[in-house]
Amino acid sequence: MEIKVLQKVLDRNRDMAATVRAKLKEKKLLMINLISSPGAGKTSLLEFLGEALAGKVRMAVIEGDVATDRDAIRLKRFGFPVVLINTDGGCHLDSHSISVALKELDLDNLDLIFVENVGNLVCPAHFDLGESFKLAIVSTTEGDDKPIKYPMVFRDARAVVLNKTDLLPYTRFKRDVFLNDLHGINPSVPLFELSCVTMQGVEAFKSWLLDQINEWISA
Amino acid sequence: MEIKVLQKVLDRNRDMAATVRAKLKEKKLLMINLISSPGAGKTSLLEFLGEALAGKVRMAVIEGDVATDRDAIRLKRFGFPVVLINTDGGCHLDSHSISVALKELDLDNLDLIFVENVGNLVCPAHFDLGESFKLAIVSTTEGDDKPIKYPMVFRDARAVVLNKTDLLPYTRFKRDVFLNDLHGINPSVPLFELSCVTMQGVEAFKSWLLDQINEWISA
Repeated sequence: MEIKVLQKVLDRNRDMAATVRAKLKEKKLLMINLISSPGAGKTSLLEFLGEALAGKVRMAVIEGDVATDRDAIRLKRFGFPVVLINTDGGCHLDSHSISVALKELDLDNLDLIFVENVGNLVCPAHFDLGESFKLAIVSTTEGDDKPIKYPMVFRDARAVVLNKTDLLPYTRFKRDVFLNDLHGINPSVPLFELSCVTMQGVEAFKSWLLDQINEWISA
Repeated sequence: MEIKVLQKVLDRNRDMAATVRAKLKEKKLLMINLISSPGAGKTSLLEFLGEALAGKVRMAVIEGDVATDRDAIRLKRFGFPVVLINTDGGCHLDSHSISVALKELDLDNLDLIFVENVGNLVCPAHFDLGESFKLAIVSTTEGDDKPIKYPMVFRDARAVVLNKTDLLPYTRFKRDVFLNDLHGINPSVPLFELSCVTMQGVEAFKSWLLDQINEWISA
């Protein structure tokens, strides 16, 4: 019989996150923890970046999935390293799995690591992975009430991406309600409204991301 | 310092689920555990049923939310009893919270209880609430790969609702891929393709639900 003690799990996670963070700092590597609901567009955003940053930024992805290698296969087409973590029913990644995944990557030849967390707006918010910062993605078709209903992820995010703006005309999404709730939770968080289908708005996000990498490397 | 032992949590949940299930059987009450990603349309489906079943079925909702009473307020307009459980960051409902919520309802004067679980395709799959069965909702805008990527919920569901069919023309959703994956996981599960905006397809779901209630009451 397996006994898991939650407090010890959280303590161990925090300690390992500190180790991961120190390692990334030593290597001058930016690591972004990407969090969203299932199907909000995490993998689509990474597909865009895989193409847009090719030859400019040395990128890798740690891909977290409950089951299957579908997203990992989608990303491997772009030629950057992808490490897949299957959680086998687990609802979030933790810093231990990240520390193991990092061993599969050549950290001296990377600038940027994206961690695509399990599709879940709740649990990933509770687990520090040692990331440089969290990035939240939400899509217009999920409704304008997500920040207020799932506040932890939005409160802790360095930036928020509102994806699927191409579908806005067909939804009841109220932009003013969304913005008001989001800024009530995280007053000055940058928001990038974009579509990974029409590519409208993606360049502004790319510019911001390049600035983050440059700031991180020169810090 | 609080120590939580996961195995004990799961054992206690299973025991309390059995107690809840026995109570519902005694009262000849159907209880449906509604599970989906955030924003897939759980509350919208309940709004439709609140109107469609008024005067025909005595219905109540136990509303699970990480934070806020927004969905409970949406549902209270329809006049049926709504009991709100705020999980305060928790990622799923459990059978203990259901047993407490049931005390707030007049079980002798109800036919049907919907439990709207926390918006999450992972954790709610692991916790038996004592429900009669689980109902999974997924929306076209989340992509066709949700059954294969989050198999637990779809494997255990008595039926599946595919919502937001009105948005199909604007998405890359492949219906044959979705059906093939879904039936690979749960071969004979009934699927209801509908839109809670245009109301296309909702009557077939309502008929099926009424059959479930009648079967349950006469069992």
